[in-house]
Amino acid sequence: MQPLKLSKAFTLIEPGPVVLVTTSDGRRSNVMTISWTMVMDFTPRIAITTGEWNYSFRSLKQTRECVIAIPAVDMLDQVVGIGTCSGAETDKFAKFKLTPVPAKNIKAPLIKECLANIECRVVEIISRHNIVVLEALAAYVDSSRKEKRTVHAVGDGTFIVDGRRLNRRTKMAAKIPAGI
Amino acid sequence: MQPLKLSKAFTLIEPGPVVLVTTSDGRRSNVMTISWTMVMDFTPRIAITTGEWNYSFRSLKQTRECVIAIPAVDMLDQVVGIGTCSGAETDKFAKFKLTPVPAKNIKAPLIKECLANIECRVVEIISRHNIVVLEALAAYVDSSRKEKRTVHAVGDGTFIVDGRRLNRRTKMAAKIPAGI
Repeated sequence: MQPLKLSKAFTLIEPGPVVLVTTSDGRRSNVMTISWTMVMDFTPRIAITTGEWNYSFRSLKQTRECVIAIPAVDMLDQVVGIGTCSGAETDKFAKFKLTPVPAKNIKAPLIKECLANIECRVVEIISRHNIVVLEALAAYVDSSRKEKRTVHAVGDGTFIVDGRRLNRRTKMAAKIPAGI
Repeated sequence: MQPLKLSKAFTLIEPGPVVLVTTSDGRRSNVMTISWTMVMDFTPRIAITTGEWNYSFRSLKQTRECVIAIPAVDMLDQVVGIGTCSGAETDKFAKFKLTPVPAKNIKAPLIKECLANIECRVVEIISRHNIVVLEALAAYVDSSRKEKRTVHAVGDGTFIVDGRRLNRRTKMAAKIPAGI
């Protein structure tokens, strides 16, 4: 995993891929599948929607930190598996054969198998809307990974895989932050 | 455009497509391109990130309503054009050849050329984070439209087009709301 400039980390989330979110309560790490995410700023700031219904939420609230890991399509069955069982009963890192990698700034682990990882701290939990506002502290990509296509949850049990990429950089020039 | 069950409207946003957001101040309609969106609940509730830097924000704040329209990939150049000029100087419906269609519950128009449209009212504007929380009132899809692939903004001036769809409905059954 190579470091990614923090100013580019929002480009990992803006396309809307399903992500994995890791937490650690100091004793044990856990991971959940989240598809309700939003870039909020180039800094980057990222929102996720979660709450008490996710076992990970307790750790997230206590430690105020997490890692957003971006899986590729070859991990779809792990992503679905992680999203359909609870960390209350399951060691998901073991069950889904994920390799935790120590993060630099926080205790929640990176996931080695993922395409990219973003270390985040909690800025604010807006409880009445179940929105967790996150600020990224560091980001990494595995550029040697062959499968780079991500997946987008539709919400009905189907997932859309990334197709081709279209370039409109010239037309968009005035709107793209410097260095992106 | 055929009505879509409101309970299914979140599936239009969850995959993370770039969207168009229309507003009307009573005199004139405007439209902006937004890629910072998030499903917040199945109801559905949807968050978008916007603020004073978007000319449409003034109408959105005053009227507390908007339409989220989902363009398909054949509209990408309109989407980019809409995102790189301001409603302060431009009648974007005229310039980008979009046909406004009256909505049922609100004054902001639907966009005929889009794949889908969602009428929304503002639940709350969380100003310190530039988050606008929306609740959907009605949704429509144009099922006769041939091109149904949407586009996902990366944020660097490139866009990822929808690829193939993978089905994990059986594995996900316990997590899919009834009727979806």
